[in-house]
Amino acid sequence: MDKIPVAVLGATGLVGQRFIEILSKHPWFEVEYVAASERSAGLKYADVVNWVLSNEIPGSVANLVVGSVYDVPDDIEIVFSALPSSIAELVEVSLARRGFTVVSNASPLRMEPDIPLLNPEVNHDHINLLKVQRRRRAWKGYILKNPNCTTVILTLSLAPIFNEYGIEQLMVTTMQAISGAGLRGVPAYLITDNIIPYIEKEEVKVMTETRKILGKLSERGKVEPLSLPIAVTTTRVPVLDGHMEVVYIKTSNEAEPSEIMDILENFKSLPQELKLPTAPSKPVIVRKEKDRPQPRLDRLAGNGMSVTVGRVEKMEELGDRWIQYVVLGHNTIRGAAGTAVLIAELYTKTMGLSH
Amino acid sequence: MDKIPVAVLGATGLVGQRFIEILSKHPWFEVEYVAASERSAGLKYADVVNWVLSNEIPGSVANLVVGSVYDVPDDIEIVFSALPSSIAELVEVSLARRGFTVVSNASPLRMEPDIPLLNPEVNHDHINLLKVQRRRRAWKGYILKNPNCTTVILTLSLAPIFNEYGIEQLMVTTMQAISGAGLRGVPAYLITDNIIPYIEKEEVKVMTETRKILGKLSERGKVEPLSLPIAVTTTRVPVLDGHMEVVYIKTSNEAEPSEIMDILENFKSLPQELKLPTAPSKPVIVRKEKDRPQPRLDRLAGNGMSVTVGRVEKMEELGDRWIQYVVLGHNTIRGAAGTAVLIAELYTKTMGLSH
Amino acid sequence: MDKIPVAVLGATGLVGQRFIEILSKHPWFEVEYVAASERSAGLKYADVVNWVLSNEIPGSVANLVVGSVYDVPDDIEIVFSALPSSIAELVEVSLARRGFTVVSNASPLRMEPDIPLLNPEVNHDHINLLKVQRRRRAWKGYILKNPNCTTVILTLSLAPIFNEYGIEQLMVTTMQAISGAGLRGVPAYLITDNIIPYIEKEEVKVMTETRKILGKLSERGKVEPLSLPIAVTTTRVPVLDGHMEVVYIKTSNEAEPSEIMDILENFKSLPQELKLPTAPSKPVIVRKEKDRPQPRLDRLAGNGMSVTVGRVEKMEELGDRWIQYVVLGHNTIRGAAGTAVLIAELYTKTMGLSH
Amino acid sequence: MDKIPVAVLGATGLVGQRFIEILSKHPWFEVEYVAASERSAGLKYADVVNWVLSNEIPGSVANLVVGSVYDVPDDIEIVFSALPSSIAELVEVSLARRGFTVVSNASPLRMEPDIPLLNPEVNHDHINLLKVQRRRRAWKGYILKNPNCTTVILTLSLAPIFNEYGIEQLMVTTMQAISGAGLRGVPAYLITDNIIPYIEKEEVKVMTETRKILGKLSERGKVEPLSLPIAVTTTRVPVLDGHMEVVYIKTSNEAEPSEIMDILENFKSLPQELKLPTAPSKPVIVRKEKDRPQPRLDRLAGNGMSVTVGRVEKMEELGDRWIQYVVLGHNTIRGAAGTAVLIAELYTKTMGLSH
Repeated sequence: MDKIPVAVLGATGLVGQRFIEILSKHPWFEVEYVAASERSAGLKYADVVNWVLSNEIPGSVANLVVGSVYDVPDDIEIVFSALPSSIAELVEVSLARRGFTVVSNASPLRMEPDIPLLNPEVNHDHINLLKVQRRRRAWKGYILKNPNCTTVILTLSLAPIFNEYGIEQLMVTTMQAISGAGLRGVPAYLITDNIIPYIEKEEVKVMTETRKILGKLSERGKVEPLSLPIAVTTTRVPVLDGHMEVVYIKTSNEAEPSEIMDILENFKSLPQELKLPTAPSKPVIVRKEKDRPQPRLDRLAGNGMSVTVGRVEKMEELGDRWIQYVVLGHNTIRGAAGTAVLIAELYTKTMGLSH
Repeated sequence: MDKIPVAVLGATGLVGQRFIEILSKHPWFEVEYVAASERSAGLKYADVVNWVLSNEIPGSVANLVVGSVYDVPDDIEIVFSALPSSIAELVEVSLARRGFTVVSNASPLRMEPDIPLLNPEVNHDHINLLKVQRRRRAWKGYILKNPNCTTVILTLSLAPIFNEYGIEQLMVTTMQAISGAGLRGVPAYLITDNIIPYIEKEEVKVMTETRKILGKLSERGKVEPLSLPIAVTTTRVPVLDGHMEVVYIKTSNEAEPSEIMDILENFKSLPQELKLPTAPSKPVIVRKEKDRPQPRLDRLAGNGMSVTVGRVEKMEELGDRWIQYVVLGHNTIRGAAGTAVLIAELYTKTMGLSH
Repeated sequence: MDKIPVAVLGATGLVGQRFIEILSKHPWFEVEYVAASERSAGLKYADVVNWVLSNEIPGSVANLVVGSVYDVPDDIEIVFSALPSSIAELVEVSLARRGFTVVSNASPLRMEPDIPLLNPEVNHDHINLLKVQRRRRAWKGYILKNPNCTTVILTLSLAPIFNEYGIEQLMVTTMQAISGAGLRGVPAYLITDNIIPYIEKEEVKVMTETRKILGKLSERGKVEPLSLPIAVTTTRVPVLDGHMEVVYIKTSNEAEPSEIMDILENFKSLPQELKLPTAPSKPVIVRKEKDRPQPRLDRLAGNGMSVTVGRVEKMEELGDRWIQYVVLGHNTIRGAAGTAVLIAELYTKTMGLSH
Repeated sequence: MDKIPVAVLGATGLVGQRFIEILSKHPWFEVEYVAASERSAGLKYADVVNWVLSNEIPGSVANLVVGSVYDVPDDIEIVFSALPSSIAELVEVSLARRGFTVVSNASPLRMEPDIPLLNPEVNHDHINLLKVQRRRRAWKGYILKNPNCTTVILTLSLAPIFNEYGIEQLMVTTMQAISGAGLRGVPAYLITDNIIPYIEKEEVKVMTETRKILGKLSERGKVEPLSLPIAVTTTRVPVLDGHMEVVYIKTSNEAEPSEIMDILENFKSLPQELKLPTAPSKPVIVRKEKDRPQPRLDRLAGNGMSVTVGRVEKMEELGDRWIQYVVLGHNTIRGAAGTAVLIAELYTKTMGLSH
C-alpha cells in the first residue's frame, strides 16, 4: 500500500524538526514536501536546517529541496503546519481553500467555533466540527488544530478526572521548557540560573482552549465551552524540553487519590482502540515515587506521547474535594507535533481515507 | 564602643558562609569564634572552608582557628547557629543552658510554644515569648529561631495583606534554589536540565511555621496559631540562589491589585523604625514589569534582605476575593542568615543590650 | 544457547546503572547478581537504586536482591566492577583469586604490568597479558581493566593517526561532564554557571594510561609504554554527559587534515571484524560541520560507543606537522561501562569461551 | 570641576549596559547621550532597554531620551561605541570626522595600522599612533579601539611573562561565556547541557590582535606586529559571564612557575601609576588553590577589571621552557566596556584633556 504524501510547513523550526522526526518513521505518511522561510527556498533541507535533535536528520528528508509555503504540490494530501502565528492564518486558509487537509500547531483560528481543536484521547468527537466547517466555509479542504502545548498536557490529565468526578475549580502553575518558545525564542543569557514568571499570551490560551476541549459538542454541531473557573500562572524555567504543571482542582464529587490514580492509569480512549500508530498505549502514566515526574526522566515516556502524573494528593486543609497533582509532558512532541500527527491519524481513520 | 562578640556554628556551610559575610561588615557584632565539624577543629577557617561566595573570605575571620561547637568561649554573647538538624537541638540547648543567646537557623524546636520564631518585620512582638521561655526552662540563656527560608519570604509578603484584608485561604507553589539544600545538597547530575517536584519535609514546615508567625501573642504569653487553610507544593529548580513562590490567596475582604501593591510597597515595621542595621529600607519591593521578579535579577535587592513581588493580579474567574502574586527572596540571606542577624539586632536593641 | 551469567558490582552508581542498561539487552550476557553498599544488601534493586537514566530500570534486574561484593555466587562467569577506588583492589583481587573473570572500571591496578588495560579497537592484542598474569599471580581468574573515561575517548581518536603518521607530541585540554564524577560527585551549587579547571588525579591518569595503551606488547609479554611527551589540562563543565577534548598533536610525518579525516572515518579494528555485539560499526565518526562535535548532539552516536571528531585542522603557524581536532565521547558508555562490556566480549570471543 | 560629557552608542545591548553601569559612577565622565537602534529613538532609555544587570538602571541615565547614532550632539567629547560590526565602521568614521574622540569595542578597523588597539596596561604607548592617525586621515577627532574580549584577557596575562622571558610559541583553548555573543546571541536551546566548539571569526581575531598588541611601536610611528606562532581554539560554554582560557606557552628563556607567579602578581603599569579611576590595583591576581580560577567566583575580581590566573605549572614532558596556566576575566567588563573606559581615561590623562 502506498503511503499518504504529506507536507511540513515551517520545517526548520523546533516543532518542524519534531514533525520530520516523527513522520520519517511513520507507517502511513511520507513527507514529500517541506517548506520554510523564503531565504531557504531552493536549497536542500539538510543544508538549511540547524538540526538540533539527537537523532540524525532522516535520510528521506535530508535531500528534499525546500519549497515555499505557497507552492505545496497538488498531490500532497495532508499539510502539517508549524508556521509562526504571524503568517499561519493566511497560509493555512489558502491551503484549505485549495483542498488540502491542514493539521496545524499554530495558534490562530484555534477558537473558531467550526474548527476542531483536538486532543484526540480527550475530545475526538469534536472532529465532527469538520462537517460544520465544510458547510460554513467555501473550502475544498479542512483545517484542524492541536492545542497549545500546555493545554494538551493539562487536558490529557484532567479529562479522566473530569469525566468521573466533575471539576468545579482549576488552578495551574506551570514551569515550561525553553523549547516552548522555539529554537531561538529564549536567549541563554536571560534564562541561565533564572526563572521568568511570565509567558506572553500563554495564560489566556490555556484558559480558553481548556474550556473548548472539555466542552460538549451539541447535536446542532456546536461546542459549548465548559463553564469552569480557571486560574493559570505560567513561568519559563531552564529546562530543555518538558512542561511541568502543578495542578490544583476542586472536584464536584469527592475522590480519593488512590481512586484518581487508578482512573488515570487505566485511561484509554478512541486512539488506543483504533490502534492509531502514534497513540501511546498509556496516555497517562502514574508514578508513585514522591519525587516524580521530572522533566529529564519522564519527558520521553511513551515516545514523548504519554504524560506522567505524580504527587496525587488530597489538600485536606482546603476541603474534601481539593486534589493536587503534578503533570509532565513533552511540549514539542505530545504538546505539538506528536498530537498533530495523532490528529491526522484520527482524521485518516475516521473520515474515510482509511488505512 | 566595643563590638559584641559573637560566634557562628556550622560556619563552613552555605548559610554559615553567609553569616560570616554579613557579620564581617556589621557595626555591632564581631565574629570571634567559629565552629564546624570535628575534622576541621584546630585548623584555620580559610584552610578548611570551601568558600563559594564571590566576595573574598573576610580577613578578620580567615585566620580564626575553627573550634568545636561544645567549646564556645564564655565571653561570646550571641551564638548564631547554622548547624545541621541532626545535632542542632542538642548543641543549642546546651549553649542556652550555659547562658548564651542562641539565634538559630536550624529547624528543630521552631514549633515549641515558648521559642520565638521570628520574621522581625512580621511578628517582632513574639520576642516576648522569651519571658515565658525563661520561666519555663532552666536556661540562663535563650534560643530564638528564624523560620524556614520559604516561610520567611512568604510571610514577609503576606503580612501586609493579611493585616489589611485578612486571608481565608492560601495556596503556594514554590520553585526553590539549589542553595536551599546546602553546599552539597543537590547533585548537579540530578538537577541540570530538570526540576524535582518535591522537597523533603518542606511543605509541612511552610504550613505550620506560617500559622505560628501570623498567630497572635496572647496576654498570657501564648501564640495562638492562625487558623488558615494552606496548600503548599514545593519544587527544586536549577537556580543557584533565590526562592520564587507563586501565591494564590483568598482575602477576607475584597482588595484591588493596585491597593495591594500600595500596601506592600509602603510596608514598614519595627526593624525599619529602629533602624536596625540589617533591616532593608523597603522590606517588600513591588515590580510592575510583567516579567518580574526573576531570581538572578532580584535576589540581591535590598542587599538580599528585601523580597520582590510582581504579577499582583486578581483571579477574576475564581471570584472577587482571589488574588495571585509572585514573590522572590534570597533564600540564604533573607531566608536564613540575614534574618537571623536581624533577629539578633532586634533582641539586642529591645531586650536591654542596647547599642 | 544459554546466556553467560554475569554480575555487576557497584550496581547503583552511575556507571553501575549504565552496566545494567547495556547488559539488559545483551545477546550473550545475563545479569544474575548485583552488589552495592552494605546498607542496600538484602533489598530489591529497584528499591535501593536512584535510577537516573531515561530508560526504565530493566525488568529482569529490577527485582534482583542486592547482595554483597563478597558473596558473588560461584556460577557467575564474568564480574563487572564499577566499585569505588577505595575498595576496588581488595574486592577484585579476591574475586580473581576465587576464579572469576573481573572486568573493571576502577582505577587501581590499571598500571600493573601484567594487567591488560584495554581499549579494544586500539590495543586488543594486550589481552595476551592475561597469560603473563596467570603465570605471575596465584589467581584462578583474571582481572582486565578499561581505561579512564578521558583516555578511552582520546586514544580511540589518536590510534588511527598514530598508526599512520606517528605522534611526537600531544597536548590535550578537556571539558568533562558532571557524570564523570558519579551520581553525587559534583554539587550543583559548585558547577552551575561555572567551570572548575581541575579534576583530582585525572591528568596523570590520562598521561600514563595513554602511553600504556599505545605501547607495544613485546614477545616477552611486556608492554613497553610509548615514549610520548604529553601535556593535559582537565576541567569540569556544566554538561551532563559527554567529555569533549581539544587535542593538539605534532605528528612524526606530515599529514593533511583531509587525509586524517579519511583515516579516522574508515578506521575499523578487531571488534568490528569479530562483530562483537557492543562494537560500534564506526568507532570514529567525523563531522565536517564547523561547530561539531557537541556533547548533547553527539554523545549517543553509535549508541554511545562511537567517538565523534570535528574541526580537524592544520595549525599552520606552529609548523607543518601540527594538527588540532576536537573529540567527543560518552564518558559513562564508551568511557566506562560500554568499553568494559566490549572487553568482556573480546575476552569471551578470543579466549575460548566462544559464543 | 565639571564632568566630561560622553555618549554611549549601542546602549541597550549587553556591552552597552556595562558601559552605562561603569560610567554612571565615574568620577570624570557623565553620560549625556545614548543611542540605539532606530525603533528606540525618541523613547526613554528605561522604557526600551531590557536591563539584565543586577544593579538597577542608574537614575541619571534611565530618563535620557534615546537618540540616533547620527545625531550625537556637538558638546559630547568622548563617544563610546558598542555598535554591531555591520554599522560600526561607517558610524565611527563619520563621528571621528566630525571631531569626536571615539573609543570603540567594535571589531572593524582594529587592525588598521594607524588605529591604536589598546589594552592599557600592556601597550599604552601605542596611543601615540593617534599622531599618525591625525596626519593620515582627514579627521578632526580620533578612533581608538579596545581588543576582542578574549584577547584583552589573554594579553594582560601574557605581557608580564613576555616582557621578562620572551615567548616563542603560544597555544590557547578558550571556554567562553554566553554574554560574549550579546544579549540574544546564544539561544538557550543550543547551549544548555552543551558546548559549541566554534565561535565565528574569533580565532583569527585573537591571533592577529595579540600580535598587534604585543608588537613594538617604532620611532617612525608604526607598530611592528610580534612575530609569534599562535594556535587558538575557541569554544562556547554554558556560563553567563567570564571567559576562561587554558594557555600553553613556550618561553624564550626558562622560567619557574614560582617566578612567573611573582611577576604576574606584582605586575603594574602606567594605568596604575596614573591612578586611572577604572584601573584595577592588581591587573593580574594569582590564585594558588588548584581549582581556581572559576568564572562565577573570580569574574568580578577587581570590579571585573582584573584577570585571575591559576594553575601555573611547568609542562615538564614537553621541555623546560613550556608553561601552562589558566586565566579568567570578565568578558564584558575587562573584555569590553571596562577596558574602553580605561582607554578613555588614559587618553584624557595623557593627551591633554587633563583631569
